[in-house]
Amino acid sequence: MALQARALYDFQSENVGEISVREDEVLTVYSEHDIEGWLEGVNSRGERGLFPASYVQIQRAAAGGVAAAEPPVSRYANVPAAPPPQPAAAGPVVSSTFCPPPQLQAATAGGGGGPGGLVQLGGLQHQTSGSGDDDDWDDDWDDSSTVADEPLPGGGGGGMGFSPELDGLGRYKVSTAAGRRSGSSASAASKSTTTVSRNLNRFSTFVKSGGEAFILGEAAGFVKDGDRICVVSGPHGPAWQEDPYPFSCSIDEPTKQTKFKGIKSYISYRLVPNHTQISVNRRYKHFDWLYGRLVEKFPVISVPHIPEKQATGRFEEDFISKRKKGLILWMNHMTSHPVLARCDAFQHFLTCSDEKAWKQGKRKAEKDDMVGGNFFLTLSTPPAPLDLQEVESRVDGFKSFTKRMDESVFQLSHTANEFARKQVVGFKKEYQKVGTSFRLLSQAFEMDQQSFSVGLNRAIAFTGDAYDAIGELFAEQPKQDIDPIVDLLALYQGHLTNFPDIIHVQKGALTKVKESKRHVEEGKMELQQADGVRERCDTISFATLAEIHHFHTIRVSDFKTQMQHFLQQQIHFYQKVTQKLEEALQKYDGV
Amino acid sequence: MALQARALYDFQSENVGEISVREDEVLTVYSEHDIEGWLEGVNSRGERGLFPASYVQIQRAAAGGVAAAEPPVSRYANVPAAPPPQPAAAGPVVSSTFCPPPQLQAATAGGGGGPGGLVQLGGLQHQTSGSGDDDDWDDDWDDSSTVADEPLPGGGGGGMGFSPELDGLGRYKVSTAAGRRSGSSASAASKSTTTVSRNLNRFSTFVKSGGEAFILGEAAGFVKDGDRICVVSGPHGPAWQEDPYPFSCSIDEPTKQTKFKGIKSYISYRLVPNHTQISVNRRYKHFDWLYGRLVEKFPVISVPHIPEKQATGRFEEDFISKRKKGLILWMNHMTSHPVLARCDAFQHFLTCSDEKAWKQGKRKAEKDDMVGGNFFLTLSTPPAPLDLQEVESRVDGFKSFTKRMDESVFQLSHTANEFARKQVVGFKKEYQKVGTSFRLLSQAFEMDQQSFSVGLNRAIAFTGDAYDAIGELFAEQPKQDIDPIVDLLALYQGHLTNFPDIIHVQKGALTKVKESKRHVEEGKMELQQADGVRERCDTISFATLAEIHHFHTIRVSDFKTQMQHFLQQQIHFYQKVTQKLEEALQKYDGV
Repeated sequence: MALQARALYDFQSENVGEISVREDEVLTVYSEHDIEGWLEGVNSRGERGLFPASYVQIQRAAAGGVAAAEPPVSRYANVPAAPPPQPAAAGPVVSSTFCPPPQLQAATAGGGGGPGGLVQLGGLQHQTSGSGDDDDWDDDWDDSSTVADEPLPGGGGGGMGFSPELDGLGRYKVSTAAGRRSGSSASAASKSTTTVSRNLNRFSTFVKSGGEAFILGEAAGFVKDGDRICVVSGPHGPAWQEDPYPFSCSIDEPTKQTKFKGIKSYISYRLVPNHTQISVNRRYKHFDWLYGRLVEKFPVISVPHIPEKQATGRFEEDFISKRKKGLILWMNHMTSHPVLARCDAFQHFLTCSDEKAWKQGKRKAEKDDMVGGNFFLTLSTPPAPLDLQEVESRVDGFKSFTKRMDESVFQLSHTANEFARKQVVGFKKEYQKVGTSFRLLSQAFEMDQQSFSVGLNRAIAFTGDAYDAIGELFAEQPKQDIDPIVDLLALYQGHLTNFPDIIHVQKGALTKVKESKRHVEEGKMELQQADGVRERCDTISFATLAEIHHFHTIRVSDFKTQMQHFLQQQIHFYQKVTQKLEEALQKYDGV
Repeated sequence: MALQARALYDFQSENVGEISVREDEVLTVYSEHDIEGWLEGVNSRGERGLFPASYVQIQRAAAGGVAAAEPPVSRYANVPAAPPPQPAAAGPVVSSTFCPPPQLQAATAGGGGGPGGLVQLGGLQHQTSGSGDDDDWDDDWDDSSTVADEPLPGGGGGGMGFSPELDGLGRYKVSTAAGRRSGSSASAASKSTTTVSRNLNRFSTFVKSGGEAFILGEAAGFVKDGDRICVVSGPHGPAWQEDPYPFSCSIDEPTKQTKFKGIKSYISYRLVPNHTQISVNRRYKHFDWLYGRLVEKFPVISVPHIPEKQATGRFEEDFISKRKKGLILWMNHMTSHPVLARCDAFQHFLTCSDEKAWKQGKRKAEKDDMVGGNFFLTLSTPPAPLDLQEVESRVDGFKSFTKRMDESVFQLSHTANEFARKQVVGFKKEYQKVGTSFRLLSQAFEMDQQSFSVGLNRAIAFTGDAYDAIGELFAEQPKQDIDPIVDLLALYQGHLTNFPDIIHVQKGALTKVKESKRHVEEGKMELQQADGVRERCDTISFATLAEIHHFHTIRVSDFKTQMQHFLQQQIHFYQKVTQKLEEALQKYDGV
């Protein structure tokens, strides 16, 4: 009998080779031995592929009729109602970023982390080249590069309080190992981590992002003055402190470049940030590298997705033009984000024009230790503690909002694309058919041998041409109004796929607070330790709410601008149509 | 073996039950015995139905391998290159208007007509009620009425010259039995008709219209002063003398009337001619009756077709409104035609408001003897003889023109209908889908709990409504611009089906002239007689050219007006669309 497994959680496939599973769904498994955390099998819809081994529970059928079922694995206490986030990618290429179940078991069995409480913050590692040599990136779409797997610096033994302590390099060494007020020792930190349990689901974004480590007081690192990120209390609640030096960056028409004597060719984009006025040339892979760094660094910031890869025809004019528009939109979202805009990796990307300096900056960014959970160490938040219920309500509201927005954006994008297609094909054809028919009539009329009909014949022919031209106008129009809307919607679709992870991190933190409260009530945890958890949760909540606020702000601004642009273009279009018709009408004067 | 027949001429089916045949096409015939001039069979395209027996030649296959084919029937000398006109309708209902082949054979065998040379002018008899009682017409669509088959008055023995001779009633008794200048006797007329042969194709419009009879000098009748119709020499050639008292006639919204205590209901149209300002109520059957009279009376005038019958749903608003528009167009063509506008039957139709007087006038019109061939007797033409070659060239040119115009009108009508359908269904749907998507987006945005988004949400919702409204505008628009064009095209399609018959009559006359010339050269005919034929042919040519000129004049005027109207409506439409969009755009101000 085939080996079966029951799904413990929903898992949504995102990559080729993965399959989605639903909670309680029974799957057929090919082998009970996972390959680096993944099992292969068939789900109830007959789809075959990989799914995380920790998401299912193997159900062994007894040989000879005797049931020898394993005791069911108990539900993990900390798994939130929201679906767990999906792994970045299945398969050996990226699996090293996930803790395989055996290690997971060991961590559970052995209690909290070792001395210092620091765990590796693998996080949402983005695929980048393992090599520091920029020239190894021969192709924009080089997928063969392996995932960077460099251990992050441990931050020097941990156990420090949240209060910053200046090191010799002008950096603040901070840690969350114990509550700020307690100033407790490393042993206290160790105790706190054994009290607030770990989430067994190592695929959870809460875990991967470093949010759990931060909440558990295990994050530690040196925060430079310039790295300090402030959340302020704005009129609409927590908000990112605005960039005192806002800037924008233009992206010129891309140019095709070659290297290796023309064997390799690629597209280069010229960027001109207006705060330096110095142009830099960047390829898609540079955007891609930067994106990877940002996603890794900021666990509760929605990093705008870069335009999608396209394997074929990437030098075609339409594609290049479309990507350029996508990159401009992306760039605008980058420069208008108070945190992303000021981030070192992005500034390096925007300003470095020297090749050697580029490589240095690239390595530095890749070795940044203030990523993932450590990012939260860099946050300065308003002192007032947040109302947990209010935060939960706002985040839940935002979750519902993103779901609806995602649906309506999908719908509008589909409709707009269809509308564009109809205009390019159907509308054009209909108007041009009318044009042709008028011209045919005028040609027939030209056979009438009547001098008094000449003016009419010409006017009708002109009318035919006008309808032809209107058909062309219809076909050209979507580029002016619909395509920009669809591009913007695509950017927002990217954001909307980011937010479940962000919400998940915040919800994970809230759960830890509730858990620690219970532990305090049960006398299992000291109030001070629970306060530390609560404070760190507030830090995450402040960041999350600031990010939500930023999203709403830029959304309202973007959609206002885009709708105005759309309507202006539409008005201009119908005015052009009207003008064509007026020109035609004038031809009948004096006929 | 199936009985076969070879087609001698092209025959175009026009009525249900008829099939088209092509010259030289071989048909399978069910029986060699015709039913009142019609045979039933299958053509080479597999279509089964009726066709005129005289258009085909039966080919008997020999039994036992011995060919016993009949000698082929000789081609009729006078059949022109143009396709013979189609019978008005096949089947027993109308077949009494056609001379069945046996009679045709007898006429051929017996030579010309009897003494006096007058033959019955059956012509293009229109289906009208055989009864004089108006109330017998219970239904607008009463097809069961039989064809009027009243012998027309013979004109009193014929043999008179063309020079008018006043009778006691102030009428001019005219005849074409001999040349105008010759003043020859009845015997001369008799001789002339035996010299210029008859057309054996009794389906020929030339014959049916009375054109042949007129050319052969067999038409005779009393022409009243008021009946005199003048062709003048205009700047573009022969033209109908303009109506010195032009008028128009309005048609009001139709009303539903009932009679027999509500058992029967019908639609009544109120007409108000502006030269009397007295309203009269007319039903569709009255229009239909008038149309029949006019078609019968005027062999070379294109009587505008009345809107088509519709058996079901004739009280539906759309249909009634559509017919009303069609009747208005028809009326405009009637009142703007110098000959039709002044015709007694039409004036009676327009002005008679008394029921008893109506019946009297109706009977009088039905007994009018100046119909068909006799119509030509009423014509006064410019004295200068026409250049036959020039006439032929102009008529040929017009024939080509009508063919092209017919094709292009068909094409435009089809395209316009399709365009309208697309707007009513497709365009509306596309715009409303966009509207719905915008509204869905605004509904999603309303969940954002952000006060600064309220204005945007409303503006987007308004934009959605604007696109809905634009969708409605698209669906409503064809009524304003496309439908009137299609209605006008339909009226012209009617005219274009009239012209082949008109051209046929003129060509028949030309053929007779050529024939008589040849006869003179061969010494078989006196020059004076040939001159008479030539003069009468000129009369027909003058009328034909005047009618062609009138057609061009009204065509240019109609199409100019209609195209202007169309473009004005289109401009107005796109302005309305623009306005909707501008209203939507304004909603984003201050958001």
